[in-house]
Amino acid sequence: MAADFRIRPLGDRVVVKPAEREEKTKGGIFLPDTASKERPMEGTILAVGEGRLDDNGKRVPMNVQSGDKVLFAKYSGTEYKIDDVEYLILSEKDILGIIQE
Amino acid sequence: MAADFRIRPLGDRVVVKPAEREEKTKGGIFLPDTASKERPMEGTILAVGEGRLDDNGKRVPMNVQSGDKVLFAKYSGTEYKIDDVEYLILSEKDILGIIQE
Amino acid sequence: MAADFRIRPLGDRVVVKPAEREEKTKGGIFLPDTASKERPMEGTILAVGEGRLDDNGKRVPMNVQSGDKVLFAKYSGTEYKIDDVEYLILSEKDILGIIQE
Amino acid sequence: MAADFRIRPLGDRVVVKPAEREEKTKGGIFLPDTASKERPMEGTILAVGEGRLDDNGKRVPMNVQSGDKVLFAKYSGTEYKIDDVEYLILSEKDILGIIQE
Amino acid sequence: MAADFRIRPLGDRVVVKPAEREEKTKGGIFLPDTASKERPMEGTILAVGEGRLDDNGKRVPMNVQSGDKVLFAKYSGTEYKIDDVEYLILSEKDILGIIQE
Amino acid sequence: MAADFRIRPLGDRVVVKPAEREEKTKGGIFLPDTASKERPMEGTILAVGEGRLDDNGKRVPMNVQSGDKVLFAKYSGTEYKIDDVEYLILSEKDILGIIQE
Amino acid sequence: MAADFRIRPLGDRVVVKPAEREEKTKGGIFLPDTASKERPMEGTILAVGEGRLDDNGKRVPMNVQSGDKVLFAKYSGTEYKIDDVEYLILSEKDILGIIQE
Repeated sequence: MAADFRIRPLGDRVVVKPAEREEKTKGGIFLPDTASKERPMEGTILAVGEGRLDDNGKRVPMNVQSGDKVLFAKYSGTEYKIDDVEYLILSEKDILGIIQE
Repeated sequence: MAADFRIRPLGDRVVVKPAEREEKTKGGIFLPDTASKERPMEGTILAVGEGRLDDNGKRVPMNVQSGDKVLFAKYSGTEYKIDDVEYLILSEKDILGIIQE
Repeated sequence: MAADFRIRPLGDRVVVKPAEREEKTKGGIFLPDTASKERPMEGTILAVGEGRLDDNGKRVPMNVQSGDKVLFAKYSGTEYKIDDVEYLILSEKDILGIIQE
Repeated sequence: MAADFRIRPLGDRVVVKPAEREEKTKGGIFLPDTASKERPMEGTILAVGEGRLDDNGKRVPMNVQSGDKVLFAKYSGTEYKIDDVEYLILSEKDILGIIQE
Repeated sequence: MAADFRIRPLGDRVVVKPAEREEKTKGGIFLPDTASKERPMEGTILAVGEGRLDDNGKRVPMNVQSGDKVLFAKYSGTEYKIDDVEYLILSEKDILGIIQE
Repeated sequence: MAADFRIRPLGDRVVVKPAEREEKTKGGIFLPDTASKERPMEGTILAVGEGRLDDNGKRVPMNVQSGDKVLFAKYSGTEYKIDDVEYLILSEKDILGIIQE
Repeated sequence: MAADFRIRPLGDRVVVKPAEREEKTKGGIFLPDTASKERPMEGTILAVGEGRLDDNGKRVPMNVQSGDKVLFAKYSGTEYKIDDVEYLILSEKDILGIIQE
């Protein structure tokens, strides 16, 4: 499905579908909203850019791919909606880690 | 039409005609104005610069072309009007993704 | 005329004669002063520097030349007057695009 | 155990399990909360990223490994919880030193 | 005279003797003090540094020389006095252009 | 003694034992607390990191070694305590100079 | 004398003994305290670091040496006292020029 996603992100950006707030992953990661410190959110990658160009003009390969479940900082990226579904466009550098199941 | 556009953007800049506020794309992307977070706008590229020069003086090819429908951050770029039509001049790095239809 | 202009700008700077505020270009670009967002101004390049040096000490060729009509951000550059005529010294990177007529 | 940790950190990030506040390490390092200056916290590394890419696109090897006890600045990184256990995702550059026992 | 000037500026710095405020150059450049925007000042270069070193350790040749009449941003540089005469030490990058007579 | 120090600092960091406030070095350096300007503190290096990696991935050798008495800016680094003794972890670039006795 | 100075500055730093406030140099440079703009101070270099390392790990030679009389920005550097004599540790890039007598 991801390859057909309607938005093709540029550079090192990815499109992410955020997990529901109350959702608990199979792996048991729970992300309460009352934390005093900023907590990461999690989501699933739907589309991946080609990667940024380094200083020598070579494209840097991406470390994530469509389908990966990822953690990302709460206020990073840009939200948008398609047919009332919320998505996020993030830079790969805002992704903290991949959730392995 | 794009090749004849009256403004030739410099470096990695592009000229974009923003979509109407209330417009809904064929693909169903809808961009409400009431969002708490900044949402991207969409538009169509009318003209594309030659690309910026990297640190070694080589020109970096652009990833977008005239006719592309793109998402960009709401407050990026510089607006201007020609014959009462509003345009935006954006740097390519402010373009989040390409809308595929 | 431009080659004889009294100021020789250094590096990637250019000297620009701004267009009159109310002026409308032949091409019909009109720049109202009431815009909520910052709008570019337009002007004509009178003199062009030799270009900046890149990290390897090579001079980066300029993308504009004397006589070009250009758009530039409203608050960029430094104004000065010669014989009561107002000029601007701008860095090339503040030039958004070239107006083609 | 660390190789199986549920989060695989990206780039030069690590996952750390912070030591209890009142805990005193075997080595006798005690970290009071009343200090006027910010004090480092300590913890144990559970998972290590592959390392960041340098300007030439080569991966920079990490200087820490799973199992290392480390000192890190108090407010660095991002907290999250799995099954009510608190973890931190840190960049390696926020790690001040390794505690040798 | 310039070669004997008492201060030898370091790196890409120059020593400038600012023109008198009310002075009008032969070329007719007049710099009123009432401008709403910052205007450049003009002056004559008395001494020139050897140039800064680039990233590869090579010295970047200066684009100005002693005797040049130059325009520079009003608040750039550091003032000092020798025998009640005011001078400025400027970085070359604060020089906007050379006045040709 | 230094080689056995309990903390192994990472990158270009060092562990320093600050000198007592009122202490006067053999060399007679006295550091009053009433100065209007920030004054450096002095201390003895107990442990030294392997050095940072430069842009080409080569390790930059450290300029200080265990046992060196050094001056450092007052508010640099991170304090911590082991068995009620205060230490500082500093980056080498915060060390102003070495005190020779 | 300078080679024996008690502090060996690191990197591109120098140790400077500032001239007395009211002092007038032989060359007649006078630095009043009432200036509206920040004025440089002058002093004599007592000790010079080995120079900073450039991006390729090569040491950049210093442009000043012990004994040089120099001008430097008033608020740059770090003060300290030895036996009630005030000294400054400055980075070479804060030195504006060398006073030739």
